[in-house]
Amino acid sequence: MTDLHLPLDRTAGRLAAQIAAGFRGAVRSGRLTAGTRLPSSRDLARDLDVSRGVVVAAYEQLTAEGFLVARRGDGTRIAPLARPDEGPPPADGATPPPSGPRPEPEFPYDLWPGRPDLSAFPRERWIAAARTALRTLPHDELTYPDPAGVPALRAELAGYLARVRAARADPARLVIMNGVAQGLSAHLRLLHDDGHDVLAVEDPTHDRQLPMLAASGLRVVRVPVDGEGMDVGALARTGARAVLVTPAHQYPTGVVLSPARRAELISWVRDVDGLILEDDYDAEFRYDREPVGCLQGIEPDRVVLLGSVSKSLAPALRLGWAVAPPVMAGRLREHRENTDLGAPVLEQYALAGFLGGGGYDRHLRAMRRRYRSRRDALAEALDVHLPGAVVRGVSAGIHLYVELPEGCDEAGVVARAARAGVSVAAAHPMWSPARAGHARPALVLGYARLPESRLVKAAELLGQAITHGAGG
Amino acid sequence: MTDLHLPLDRTAGRLAAQIAAGFRGAVRSGRLTAGTRLPSSRDLARDLDVSRGVVVAAYEQLTAEGFLVARRGDGTRIAPLARPDEGPPPADGATPPPSGPRPEPEFPYDLWPGRPDLSAFPRERWIAAARTALRTLPHDELTYPDPAGVPALRAELAGYLARVRAARADPARLVIMNGVAQGLSAHLRLLHDDGHDVLAVEDPTHDRQLPMLAASGLRVVRVPVDGEGMDVGALARTGARAVLVTPAHQYPTGVVLSPARRAELISWVRDVDGLILEDDYDAEFRYDREPVGCLQGIEPDRVVLLGSVSKSLAPALRLGWAVAPPVMAGRLREHRENTDLGAPVLEQYALAGFLGGGGYDRHLRAMRRRYRSRRDALAEALDVHLPGAVVRGVSAGIHLYVELPEGCDEAGVVARAARAGVSVAAAHPMWSPARAGHARPALVLGYARLPESRLVKAAELLGQAITHGAGG
Repeated sequence: MTDLHLPLDRTAGRLAAQIAAGFRGAVRSGRLTAGTRLPSSRDLARDLDVSRGVVVAAYEQLTAEGFLVARRGDGTRIAPLARPDEGPPPADGATPPPSGPRPEPEFPYDLWPGRPDLSAFPRERWIAAARTALRTLPHDELTYPDPAGVPALRAELAGYLARVRAARADPARLVIMNGVAQGLSAHLRLLHDDGHDVLAVEDPTHDRQLPMLAASGLRVVRVPVDGEGMDVGALARTGARAVLVTPAHQYPTGVVLSPARRAELISWVRDVDGLILEDDYDAEFRYDREPVGCLQGIEPDRVVLLGSVSKSLAPALRLGWAVAPPVMAGRLREHRENTDLGAPVLEQYALAGFLGGGGYDRHLRAMRRRYRSRRDALAEALDVHLPGAVVRGVSAGIHLYVELPEGCDEAGVVARAARAGVSVAAAHPMWSPARAGHARPALVLGYARLPESRLVKAAELLGQAITHGAGG
Repeated sequence: MTDLHLPLDRTAGRLAAQIAAGFRGAVRSGRLTAGTRLPSSRDLARDLDVSRGVVVAAYEQLTAEGFLVARRGDGTRIAPLARPDEGPPPADGATPPPSGPRPEPEFPYDLWPGRPDLSAFPRERWIAAARTALRTLPHDELTYPDPAGVPALRAELAGYLARVRAARADPARLVIMNGVAQGLSAHLRLLHDDGHDVLAVEDPTHDRQLPMLAASGLRVVRVPVDGEGMDVGALARTGARAVLVTPAHQYPTGVVLSPARRAELISWVRDVDGLILEDDYDAEFRYDREPVGCLQGIEPDRVVLLGSVSKSLAPALRLGWAVAPPVMAGRLREHRENTDLGAPVLEQYALAGFLGGGGYDRHLRAMRRRYRSRRDALAEALDVHLPGAVVRGVSAGIHLYVELPEGCDEAGVVARAARAGVSVAAAHPMWSPARAGHARPALVLGYARLPESRLVKAAELLGQAITHGAGG
């Protein structure tokens, strides 16, 4: 039976399991085909120099699994169902693409927007919070969690969001979610179930979120954003009764929804008996004044506040929350119960400890200082190196919206900048097709991850990318 | 302006923020109503003994948030939109019920099935794995993860599942999920999108999973389980093309799907061009022999293997996986991209380290010994104290299915046992209404969390609960 190729490692033990694995491999590789009769256990035991019981055990195992069929008078055969591999899986959708929302080469000057300074993640303090949590948790807390989130975290977050975001965030309204993404997708599902068929979204908006919105089954309509934020009159004309907005710091333009528009938006949502989804994605980072309190604090019965630690700590934690009207919060909890049974518990306790111990506030203060000086450095350098460009929006967040001189070739600038080692996002894809043609060429620059000196150099290279385009 | 009740803590700083918070509270409590005119900034500054700039900053903040409206010639007023709280939220669905799938009192003898021995969770080794992961991860790994799971974990799991479960688990087929629950709900969603309208489920089955199945929109049909596992002939007659099964250790009966039925099931899925969802929930725990390899290893193109660490480590980790045909794995990844952007990264790396370092295997070996002696102790004690009862199923898992003597009042036994401090599950709710009436009365006992001596005592109390019922 040398053709069976059953190599045994006698020092490793579990000989029956080794023999069974060898047979499975032989079937999968096609060396043994369906219907092939196997040697008797006695013969194989002699060939392999093992006891017969070992082979009998291996055969029984494979028979129980369906690889072999044993019939009285017919010996033991490879089961007719067993089939070899079809070779490597097909290429279409088979191998998931590499990680992250944007497969990208390494850029010396990475100004792609949307990610915080990950080198500042407080690793040691996070580990300490996780260790404290795991050492002090009663055993029973290691079972299935409350799908709405562990009460300790909901209580800490409720206090934090009331204090920092002026939210109406009692624990009964708070549901822990895997980032804003899950909070958003879950609400879209509930809106769909409620008979909504349209979702209004800002124009321009976070373009890489659009596939998720489309997957909800809702029709997405775009509503223009101007210097005061979303045009509520235009919103009213869409017929939508649900809207996704970024009032504290519009993405990508950086505009803050004006007091008048806030009032209009709230009147609108009451008039249409609708729902506002308020994405509070970087509201902790306002450098010129106190952050504007959230809309949810004004109209908690018709606004859902969605937030996360993705910009304040790290996206990898997948920790976020929804502050929703109580009935909606109950449905959200049920949604988690019916989809994933809730968020991992240890990280929830780690965040609760981090919030309660003041570590989160300290981290935010430090990051606010760091980001502010990076923003200022970049804005100043753009002033020098990109004459004619205009930085839009308020002093906040972790990105800048920079309008280029009229007639500039936006895509060309992005491509030339990339060749010079500077990764930036074009604004064009963030606009609806209808308005993209009218929008002034612009770039969206994430400045969170580079120190001041490198931001200045990046601005210089960007300036050259524009000049060379104009010259060529 | 004493009626404004704006208490200031002058040692705490941020006086403008304190004043703003005081006004928000006054509006919410109803003390200040819409339209109320506020004192001028000069007057309020004098009353509060702060500089005028502090009050101006507070008013500007509240105006930006929409709490106040300032009009030339009309002073500053509470905005017409601002409304007080409506009191505590309504009771219907408002306050999420307490945590866990089963709100329960503390029982001295907790034999509720479905949970492992959480006191054995290797806390220190898990923390060490998490710390190693966090200390060695490059910064870039703290960004948005691959929605399919981090490659390091998929590679470790692929090796583990091939070795221990005889699965066809290359990383391109593996998607990390938040437990079996998310793997299951995501597949049900995809099946629904593909036009499936029926899902076949075992009878009896894990009853607390049924609401999740119903929420998928698929119609659930039940297929009888006998001593060989699911009746595949009956399955074929349902017209379903998708089935959820527990072949390694049927829940709750403990039956292993026989070789003949495995072959029938695979023939069936090929015939109907369907899909088998294989819930491998406690397959690591087989005490009498090697675990039977998974069905997915035989027919990887039509079987999805769903597993997790909920029984092997702790449900609180919410770490699970799906091993699916490559095209399905690609869609599953897209599903995560459109719903929650993937699982938290640190715990994925911790599990990868735990698997790679051999800690997971060692933990499983230790738990297998512990559970086996608990199972044996309980089975022996049942033999003594429950004469006439029959323990069904193979020596595996963390629960026993115990048939009571004919005519026994199952619900009465459960209630009397509870009064004696013994928590057990009645089998009745796990059967379909059609078959529940014919099923012999039975209990499902989880033995994972009690030491042998207490299991023996629990069996004695259970015996009394049966005897007293018969006598009363």
